[in-house]
Amino acid sequence: MNYREESLKKHAEWRGKIEVVPRVEVDTREKLSLAYTPGVAEPCLAIHADAEKSFDLTRRWNTVPVITDGTAVLGLGDIGPEAGMPVMEGKCALFKAFGGVDAFPLCIRSKDPDEIVRTIELLAGSFGGVNLEDISAPRCFEIERRLREDLDIPVFHDDQHGTAIVVSAALINAAKLVGKEVSSLRIVINGAGAAGSAIAKFLLKTGVGEVTVCDRKGILCKGDGSLPPAMQELAKLTNRERRRGLLADAMKGADVFIGVSGPRCVTKEMVREMARDAIVFACANPEPEISREDAIEAGAAVVGTGSSEKPNQINNVLVFPGLFRGALDVRARTINDEMMLAASRAIAACVDGLGRDHILPYAYDLRAHAAVAKAVAEAAVLTGVNKI
Amino acid sequence: MNYREESLKKHAEWRGKIEVVPRVEVDTREKLSLAYTPGVAEPCLAIHADAEKSFDLTRRWNTVPVITDGTAVLGLGDIGPEAGMPVMEGKCALFKAFGGVDAFPLCIRSKDPDEIVRTIELLAGSFGGVNLEDISAPRCFEIERRLREDLDIPVFHDDQHGTAIVVSAALINAAKLVGKEVSSLRIVINGAGAAGSAIAKFLLKTGVGEVTVCDRKGILCKGDGSLPPAMQELAKLTNRERRRGLLADAMKGADVFIGVSGPRCVTKEMVREMARDAIVFACANPEPEISREDAIEAGAAVVGTGSSEKPNQINNVLVFPGLFRGALDVRARTINDEMMLAASRAIAACVDGLGRDHILPYAYDLRAHAAVAKAVAEAAVLTGVNKI
Repeated sequence: MNYREESLKKHAEWRGKIEVVPRVEVDTREKLSLAYTPGVAEPCLAIHADAEKSFDLTRRWNTVPVITDGTAVLGLGDIGPEAGMPVMEGKCALFKAFGGVDAFPLCIRSKDPDEIVRTIELLAGSFGGVNLEDISAPRCFEIERRLREDLDIPVFHDDQHGTAIVVSAALINAAKLVGKEVSSLRIVINGAGAAGSAIAKFLLKTGVGEVTVCDRKGILCKGDGSLPPAMQELAKLTNRERRRGLLADAMKGADVFIGVSGPRCVTKEMVREMARDAIVFACANPEPEISREDAIEAGAAVVGTGSSEKPNQINNVLVFPGLFRGALDVRARTINDEMMLAASRAIAACVDGLGRDHILPYAYDLRAHAAVAKAVAEAAVLTGVNKI
Repeated sequence: MNYREESLKKHAEWRGKIEVVPRVEVDTREKLSLAYTPGVAEPCLAIHADAEKSFDLTRRWNTVPVITDGTAVLGLGDIGPEAGMPVMEGKCALFKAFGGVDAFPLCIRSKDPDEIVRTIELLAGSFGGVNLEDISAPRCFEIERRLREDLDIPVFHDDQHGTAIVVSAALINAAKLVGKEVSSLRIVINGAGAAGSAIAKFLLKTGVGEVTVCDRKGILCKGDGSLPPAMQELAKLTNRERRRGLLADAMKGADVFIGVSGPRCVTKEMVREMARDAIVFACANPEPEISREDAIEAGAAVVGTGSSEKPNQINNVLVFPGLFRGALDVRARTINDEMMLAASRAIAACVDGLGRDHILPYAYDLRAHAAVAKAVAEAAVLTGVNKI
C-alpha cells in the first residue's frame, strides 16, 4: 500500500482524528442544573478555596496538550504550525487509545522560545502535564528546561526523551541477543539534534561503555570552539578519547550504530568495519541511513529502523501513552531520569518471543503500554515526586 | 434538590465532564501507518502547501476553545482561572451535546489584556472559532475587539452577545404576548457590565423604542465625566432624554425591566410604577433582582429569570451551540450583527405553545439549536462572510 497517498485520502474523509465528547448527560433540566448552572457554582468555589481541587473536580488530572510550533515535524522540517497538526492529532488519538489520556492538539504561531514558554505557562492550569512535540533544536532544549523549572506538572519533549527511551529499550534487548554487556558497548550516534543528543545523554545514564556523536561535519569533539553551545555541552559528555574524523572513522570497531539523521549516509563498507555482531538502528524516516537489507548483508546482527513495514520498528509510540498514564496516575510533579529508565526497562521486558527480528513490543500492544505506566508510576513514588 | 451540594458530589464522581476520544482505529500496523507515521506526512505537506487545508484535513473546522481568565465566573466574580474550569467544561459538554461542536476548555493565568490577546492569537491556528467566557468588563470589550480585528475565524464573547441574543428572543415573544410593538418598547437595563452593555447595544439594533441603562449609582447619562470610557460610550447610545436619577426613577413608566445585576435591587413598588403589562426579566443568578412571585404580584405580565427552577429561564445555552454550529458550517470569518439577529429570531420562532409562562424553547430542545444553526449559517451566507 502507498501509505502516504492513502493517508491523504483518509484524512480528507476523517476530517479530524479526535473529537471532544461529554461524559455527562444534559438532556433534562435536572441534569443541566447539575452539570452546568446553578449547580456548577459549588465545584467552582471549592477550587477557588483550594486550587489543587481542580485535579479532582475537572478533567485536568487526565488532560495533556500535545504542543508544537511546527518547526521540526517528522523529517519534514519547518513546515509551520497548522501543517504539524495532523501529527499532533494522531498523537492525541494514540494517547487515548494506548494510555487512556485525554490529549488535545495545540499549535503555536511563534518560533520565539520566550513566547512559546509564556504561552504554555499561562495555559498550565488547564492541564495535568505537557507534551512538547516537533520543536526544532536547540530551541527545544531551552523551552523544555524553562518549563520544567517553572511548572509543577510533568513536561516532556517526546522527540528527545521518547526516542531515547525506546532506543534504550531496543538496545537492552539487542545486546542480550548478541551476548554483549550494555556496559561494554561502544556506541556511535549520527545526528546531534533533539533526538541524537537526548539519546546520547540517556544512554550514558543507563551505563553504556562509550558514546560518540557525529553530525554532518563528523565527530563532535570537546574543545571545538566552532560548535554551537548545545553541541559543545554534548561533546563534553561524549567521545572520551577525543577522536576526530568523519562518521566512517567513528564507526570503525563500534558495537552499535544509532542513526537519527538522514537517508543513505551509511554504506555497507562502514557497517563492515564495525565490531562483530554489530547492532544497527537506522531510524531516519521515511528513508533510513542504510536499508535493513544492506545492513544485514554487511554483517549486522540486529537491525532496527523507523519503518512500520520492517521488523524492529523503533517508534516512540511505545513510550508516551504509558509514560504519561503512569505520571498522571500518581500526580507526578515532573518526569525524572528514574521514571524514564523504568519506562525503558519495562518496554524491553515485555517482548514475547524475543529474537533478532523482534526486539520490541508492537506499538499497539496494550500490555506493553500498561507495563510502562505501572513502572513509571512506581518509579515516581520511589523517588518521591508523586503528589498522590 | 439542593443542586449545589449534589453538583459538588457529582463533579467529584465525574472527575471531568468531557473527554477526548479517537475517531480512528489504531489497533493494527496498517491503521497506525495511515493515522500516524509514515502516512501522516502527506496531509502535513498538503497543509504546508496551503494552510487553508487545515480545515479539511484536521479537526480544526469543528473545534472551538472555551477560554476564560476566571475573572467573572457566573455571579461569583474573580475566583481565578482554575476555579472557572467547571463552567468551561460544562459549556464544552453543551457545545457537543447541542451543537456537535468539539469544544475544549482553556484557562489563562493572566488578567493582562495584552497577554490574553497574544495567547489566543498564537493558538488560533488550532481552532475554527473562539468562545471567550467569564472575562470581566471592561477588559472583555478590548480583548474581543482586538481578537476580532486580528483573526479571520469567529470570535464570540458569550457573556455579552449570547446573553443579548437570548434576552432579545425572549423580548420578541413577551412583546407579542402583551400586544406591544417592539419598536415602541421603553426598556430599562440594570447592570452596565459585559452583559448589560451588550444587551443595550443589541436591543437598539433590533429597533426597540428606547433603552436606559443603570448601574449601581443610577441612570447612565451622556456627558457624565465621572463614568469610565466604556460606560460613557454606552451612555451616548442610550437614555435619549438625558434623564438622571436612580433605578426607581428609570423604571417609572417603562415597559420592560432587564436585570443583569445583583439580588434584590428591585422592589414590588418599582414594578408597580412600570407601564401596564410590564415585562420583567430578572436574570441575576443565583438570586434574581426580584423574585418571580413578587414581580407577578406587583402586576408584571411576563416574568423571566435566570433560574432553571422557574418558567421562562433566560439562558444563553440556547445560543452558543447553534450559533457556532452555523458559523463553522459555512466557515464564517466572523460573527456579525445579522447572524446574531438571525439567531435571536430563530430562537423566538421555535417555541411550541407560546404563553406567558413559556416564552423560550427549553435549553435541551435540539430543534431549537438546529434552527439557530440554520438561521446563522444563512445570515452568514447572505452577508458574504462565509468561506465555504
